[in-house]
Amino acid sequence: MYAVKGSIWIEGNNGTFIGYGRAILLEGIRKHGSITEAAKSMKMSYRQAWQMVDNMNKQSKSPLVEKLTGGVGGGGTKLTKDGEKALTCFWELHNKFTKFNVVATEKLKL
Amino acid sequence: MYAVKGSIWIEGNNGTFIGYGRAILLEGIRKHGSITEAAKSMKMSYRQAWQMVDNMNKQSKSPLVEKLTGGVGGGGTKLTKDGEKALTCFWELHNKFTKFNVVATEKLKL
Repeated sequence: MYAVKGSIWIEGNNGTFIGYGRAILLEGIRKHGSITEAAKSMKMSYRQAWQMVDNMNKQSKSPLVEKLTGGVGGGGTKLTKDGEKALTCFWELHNKFTKFNVVATEKLKL
Repeated sequence: MYAVKGSIWIEGNNGTFIGYGRAILLEGIRKHGSITEAAKSMKMSYRQAWQMVDNMNKQSKSPLVEKLTGGVGGGGTKLTKDGEKALTCFWELHNKFTKFNVVATEKLKL
């Protein structure tokens, strides 16, 4: 009947660094190679998506997302190595937290 | 530099059963013997506090908070045994989650 629920995120020097929404956004950028397309797939405005990316980039030692310039098709956007690292780190945390919630639900004395 | 943060609550059949705000409200009711005073101490409207109490009461097998009638001073409001149980249960969960966050922060590979 009762269930433990919650949300979890990683904070940096300037508020949220990465949480569930930002992780999905980074996945979208990896998939689509474009902030615009990633934002569309989440029904988020480009402006909001860009601000999230900018905020993540600024809170990290090196950017998580970078613009590719030139080449056939003229660029696009990709996740950097640090972007992949942040994603992996967040999903690991997210999975541990999901397990924490399952165990805590089983142990509820209500 | 980075820190894991989050929030946690217990859901019932009808949304949140008890979370941090509701726990503080129950503590206030225990302290003041009054929903009105508890609400004031949290700068919350009586209406909102009453709705939270009503929602908790309805999601529990038996009420967490009850009105005392009659007697010198004519009543007041108190936590029931189930109210105390729900509070204990939530604070235990909250403490475990706080520890989870500390450990997860130490283990962050960012």
